[in-house]
Amino acid sequence: MDREQMIRIVRENMPERRWKHTLGVMETSVILARLYGEDENRAETAAILHDVCKFWPVEKQAETVRESGTDTDVLDFDKELWHAHAGAWIAAKQFGVEDEEVLNAIRYHTSGREDMSKLEKIVCLADYIEPSRDFPGVDAIRKLAETSLEQALIAGFDSTISFLLAKGKRIYPLTVLTRNRLIRELEV
Amino acid sequence: MDREQMIRIVRENMPERRWKHTLGVMETSVILARLYGEDENRAETAAILHDVCKFWPVEKQAETVRESGTDTDVLDFDKELWHAHAGAWIAAKQFGVEDEEVLNAIRYHTSGREDMSKLEKIVCLADYIEPSRDFPGVDAIRKLAETSLEQALIAGFDSTISFLLAKGKRIYPLTVLTRNRLIRELEV
Repeated sequence: MDREQMIRIVRENMPERRWKHTLGVMETSVILARLYGEDENRAETAAILHDVCKFWPVEKQAETVRESGTDTDVLDFDKELWHAHAGAWIAAKQFGVEDEEVLNAIRYHTSGREDMSKLEKIVCLADYIEPSRDFPGVDAIRKLAETSLEQALIAGFDSTISFLLAKGKRIYPLTVLTRNRLIRELEV
Repeated sequence: MDREQMIRIVRENMPERRWKHTLGVMETSVILARLYGEDENRAETAAILHDVCKFWPVEKQAETVRESGTDTDVLDFDKELWHAHAGAWIAAKQFGVEDEEVLNAIRYHTSGREDMSKLEKIVCLADYIEPSRDFPGVDAIRKLAETSLEQALIAGFDSTISFLLAKGKRIYPLTVLTRNRLIRELEV
């Protein structure tokens, strides 16, 4: 499927406010890809599709995660994680994306995972810092993003974990493993 | 080995300040055991021995963890976790403790673990809130301890995780799994 067709379908399936967010992730992913030497088109494709299932009914998201058969343990955690895994499945099945790295960038854009590729880091980080995002500490993360994908992502996950602590919610273990791994990557 | 002998040996192996902390954990463990219907003697025994290796050279702690052969993955994380696992091994080998629940209460008093017994929860919580402890939020945890072991422990782990986030340190995954499990226990 070509870029324009993808954009049209995605846009039709979310409210205007979320489409603005998707545009922001596209723009930021391309900027980061240029800065860190990643393919801009792959970054943009992952960004276009990253939230494709975000506004589906949660039960349909869960059904799609079950159908995909990967990382189904997310269903035991915050619903906010589900659309990413469902999105990767839909990107492959309905949008014809075959590039595994692009699919992984969609699949892990919320949770992260150990051994993230550069493309995965870029889309995950862009989702935190795209221009319309506004949460405590986002400007510090944007600043870090200018010099280190890893430091910026750690700061992003810190904010997610702090939010879950404050809310008394369970923390998806993979997010902690991802943060641990990124700290290790910086130590080497 | 009898109680007085244990106390004498433990006391000789730590600075006076830490002995004061151990006395606090003994006292608090007994109070919590009484409050939540656990055996006071077992709680006190675990408390006496919980920090027995705390002032050993870290390399000797690590050596003991390796010798014990259990949970050796802690050696990949913060050194603060090691003395607990080493302590359980020494409690068995040198102090002759045979009660597995007491040994587990020593072993997991810093990290916690999924499926903690009541005794494990008591000693872990007592270590957070004994009278000489002073850190942001400790009074709120003491208050929670009057009505719920689980809520108090969650608040304790929250403070540990927040500390590690602020310091940019890696988080021992078992601590997150423990907190997740405790939240689940409260939901049921």
